[in-house]
Amino acid sequence: MPAQVRSDDVYPSRVDGESRFLPRRDPVIYGTSGPLSPVQIAQYERAGYLFLPEFLAQDEVTPLQQEALRLRADPAITALEETIREPGSDTIRSVFRVHELSPLVAKLVRNGRVLAIVQQLLGGDVYVHQSRVNYKPAFRGREFYWHSDFETWHIEDGLPRMRALSLAVNLTDNDAFNGPLMVVPESHRTYVSCVGETPADHYKQSLRVQKYGVPDDDSLRRLVEYGGIAAPTGPAGSILLFDCNLMHGSGSNLSPKPRTNLFVVYNSVNNAAVEPFGNIPRRPSFIASQHFDPVQPE
Amino acid sequence: MPAQVRSDDVYPSRVDGESRFLPRRDPVIYGTSGPLSPVQIAQYERAGYLFLPEFLAQDEVTPLQQEALRLRADPAITALEETIREPGSDTIRSVFRVHELSPLVAKLVRNGRVLAIVQQLLGGDVYVHQSRVNYKPAFRGREFYWHSDFETWHIEDGLPRMRALSLAVNLTDNDAFNGPLMVVPESHRTYVSCVGETPADHYKQSLRVQKYGVPDDDSLRRLVEYGGIAAPTGPAGSILLFDCNLMHGSGSNLSPKPRTNLFVVYNSVNNAAVEPFGNIPRRPSFIASQHFDPVQPE
Repeated sequence: MPAQVRSDDVYPSRVDGESRFLPRRDPVIYGTSGPLSPVQIAQYERAGYLFLPEFLAQDEVTPLQQEALRLRADPAITALEETIREPGSDTIRSVFRVHELSPLVAKLVRNGRVLAIVQQLLGGDVYVHQSRVNYKPAFRGREFYWHSDFETWHIEDGLPRMRALSLAVNLTDNDAFNGPLMVVPESHRTYVSCVGETPADHYKQSLRVQKYGVPDDDSLRRLVEYGGIAAPTGPAGSILLFDCNLMHGSGSNLSPKPRTNLFVVYNSVNNAAVEPFGNIPRRPSFIASQHFDPVQPE
Repeated sequence: MPAQVRSDDVYPSRVDGESRFLPRRDPVIYGTSGPLSPVQIAQYERAGYLFLPEFLAQDEVTPLQQEALRLRADPAITALEETIREPGSDTIRSVFRVHELSPLVAKLVRNGRVLAIVQQLLGGDVYVHQSRVNYKPAFRGREFYWHSDFETWHIEDGLPRMRALSLAVNLTDNDAFNGPLMVVPESHRTYVSCVGETPADHYKQSLRVQKYGVPDDDSLRRLVEYGGIAAPTGPAGSILLFDCNLMHGSGSNLSPKPRTNLFVVYNSVNNAAVEPFGNIPRRPSFIASQHFDPVQPE
């Protein structure tokens, strides 16, 4: 039986056998002032992302690199459900909820320079909906298929509107060959409703290889024909800010250089999670936080 | 029991539990004159490859593009063992022996402009050791892991020395995002002996996912530290010529554009296959030709 669409839902998905393009009903920029220049704001609004090379200094990023390696090696961490492995192997792919597991990451989340930008884009107080380190090991790191985070966060986690963003921090250099994050510029202005229903406990599978809540081939082709593909690469310490509805993914890593990125998802406190719009049980709190207290600058 | 090394073998491999770097014992350039300039010859000799953008005109490449699609759709072709599928799916990954299955490809193999270059590099008459079309479909095309062709052609097919090359013809545009061929410049000057023995009928598996005859992580890391990684991309009709011992591979294709390349392996008639150096049965002739007649220009 197809899921029932909530009458108040402007972003339905997974309700029938067809994918649809729906217009975005929300602003991209919510704030009025802050550290980003008008040119940067215009870039983010138009393209859906902003790349700031070497935003963190070497002495800020080195401890975070070491922390990422420590988390992956700590048996107390790897025993948790927060630790996700690669499909078909025991190699660690991601560790979630790192903003609560690691004091160093918690400190970065509250970093005044970061927070001022996030608050400018989202308009005021924010909380952390999700955080994770994605490890893409050298030689055999696997891809993350194209997806819009918002579709999943709306349907599975209950984020009502598009008022969230991801901060991706390069903990290693990202180059053309180690599976850098790729985005489809301007795709954030279209909501792609996805095909089909959501199986129970889908998240356990989807964190390794996502099968539901991914766009169909034709939708992706149309988005890429319109906006192309960009892969903003840069050295460790570079950051990428991208809208919650921007289509993104990343390829496999065959190179000898691991690619490790830290992701922090900030959501406006005015957009806190409600019941999931897919009429399914909400995902566990290590993926979709239930702590809506505003992040305070350090 | 480890395979026995033939006393006359200067390029042993898969004989023990360690990988070794052995120096190349053969020239890279065999000919003395031809259409390539001294600068191009020097580039090929130093780096191990030469990329010629848009070498074929549109009216030469379009029929080859159509032929590649026709081969993949022809039930008489797809029923043959020459047709190889993707790991874990029925999608066609490669069709082998296309220089004999397709008159159009046979014509390209004899193309005077191509042949003159190949003869200049290899020094005189050549025959076709192998040919194939590699289809890397949009969205879900899988990677080809790093390997040196020569190691396999020597150990499994019996090519005695390094006097062969691959011609790769872009039948579609190759760009940064559709899994272009990647090479490790200058790696052709080092022979990387690989670890372990070769299982029986290894080729059936290796054409889908190669597990033996691939370099170990440490060897790859050293080669890339020395030469880096290059991905010569360009529109359909561009060609890449690369030495039989150049380390190469290609990543997955998440983009909406398929990546289809035609490969023709030319080997000097003075280097015709003998018994495989790995003391194993030779691979079938659709992968490793036993027809050593020189290619005649059309």
